[in-house]
Amino acid sequence: MAAEHPLDAALALAPVAPGRWRGATSPLWANMVGPFGGITAAQALAAVLRDERRLGDPVALTVNFCAPLAAGEFEIRTEPVRTNRSTQHWTVAVLQDGQTALAATAMTATRRPTWSADEAAPPAAPPPQHVARLRADGAVAWLARYDLRFVAGGFPAHWDGADSGDSRTLLWVRDEPPRPLDFAALAAMADVFYPRLWRRRARRVPIGTVSMTVYFLAEGDTVARAGSAPLLGEAHAHAYRAGYFDQSARLWSASGELLATSHQVVYYKE
Amino acid sequence: MAAEHPLDAALALAPVAPGRWRGATSPLWANMVGPFGGITAAQALAAVLRDERRLGDPVALTVNFCAPLAAGEFEIRTEPVRTNRSTQHWTVAVLQDGQTALAATAMTATRRPTWSADEAAPPAAPPPQHVARLRADGAVAWLARYDLRFVAGGFPAHWDGADSGDSRTLLWVRDEPPRPLDFAALAAMADVFYPRLWRRRARRVPIGTVSMTVYFLAEGDTVARAGSAPLLGEAHAHAYRAGYFDQSARLWSASGELLATSHQVVYYKE
Repeated sequence: MAAEHPLDAALALAPVAPGRWRGATSPLWANMVGPFGGITAAQALAAVLRDERRLGDPVALTVNFCAPLAAGEFEIRTEPVRTNRSTQHWTVAVLQDGQTALAATAMTATRRPTWSADEAAPPAAPPPQHVARLRADGAVAWLARYDLRFVAGGFPAHWDGADSGDSRTLLWVRDEPPRPLDFAALAAMADVFYPRLWRRRARRVPIGTVSMTVYFLAEGDTVARAGSAPLLGEAHAHAYRAGYFDQSARLWSASGELLATSHQVVYYKE
Repeated sequence: MAAEHPLDAALALAPVAPGRWRGATSPLWANMVGPFGGITAAQALAAVLRDERRLGDPVALTVNFCAPLAAGEFEIRTEPVRTNRSTQHWTVAVLQDGQTALAATAMTATRRPTWSADEAAPPAAPPPQHVARLRADGAVAWLARYDLRFVAGGFPAHWDGADSGDSRTLLWVRDEPPRPLDFAALAAMADVFYPRLWRRRARRVPIGTVSMTVYFLAEGDTVARAGSAPLLGEAHAHAYRAGYFDQSARLWSASGELLATSHQVVYYKE
């Protein structure tokens, strides 16, 4: 019997009662403090996706990281606060010991074909097989859950604190081992870009994402069509000011469709 | 006695109980259906700012527009779901007739000076006094609450449905009449960019913002220093797909500091 994919294992939630789910952190997804934020976002979204009251596919997800999750079990609470004809708004909370660790909102919708267009074209990039894969040995656990290939803006060769003035990264990313893309996987991938401050300053100062938003521009069919091929991702920051910086990211399918945009604001020290 | 500024009038909230506030829509801020989204976002933030339990200044705000507000009173509920040493996470709801009309989250923090830098430089623009002011007569009411000057990407001269392939707008914006900038005013201004789909297609299809996020990159001193001078704002879309498009915006002070970035996802018909 094939072992369960590490992403599916992390997304396994036990229903406790309507709108209440039990999940657990996994050492496979560990970050420096607590789990990789992307996997927590994916777990919050997965609870909405499994809720039988759900209408349609996710369009927007915002997760606020209120406190690091301790290793072990947590509870997720999902509540459809408003259901319209074709849209639905959700609040989601992840709790440990009765305390809110994550406060989230999600919007789902049934979607219909309309006039559609991509305006942000994928940047030019060599195909993934021509780009070296990041060696994740010895790094935080979650990095080994992805096949990451930096086209530009990889980890600094020297952490020498030289300000490059530039925070852009372009990379190929897919789940490791490969897994057909779905909304939860996409939510997690929206967070694979390492902190833009580290990129810009070649300096590993303490950081922590405080809020992340993902817009799922692609509908379910388009997401499914992306299959297990690598996605092209680009990220950059706009400003770093008094302890907080923002970063924005875009994820395209290998065939060039913009699947999602993502934005986050990150705490940093010094 | 000077009349109260229309923004301050809209932000007047009566405390009902701890974490409960009564406010009302205003015809001065009317949009096509319900109020201008920016004013509702500002009202939700204002409730957090007035809450005596609040720690620090806003860093992130996400508002989900669950349903249009009917003309009249509403209730705002503010809850600090997690308070840490220097950060605090809030959930906010705006209700009418016991139904959720807006579901929001906010993050506030005490901020300290750190290494800081702007990476997104303000685009070149002629000074506001050299740019024609938008004539808002006959348009929706809220447009007259702003002095808007389009440097590029103004309303299409002809709504002829020609796809320009481009959604960018660059503008100067200030409150009308002028009013010293604060976080609530900034939250409202993050929504002054008309729908990017209208800009791109020169076609006024029905639209409605479903979720908007604002990151307050500037701390309180920097926001206050912006005074009542116009801000420079830029917005663009990434993709339009099956009924939803996203748009991202940036707001700089007249002296070139990036004050806020904002992102939203918008429903569109046809």
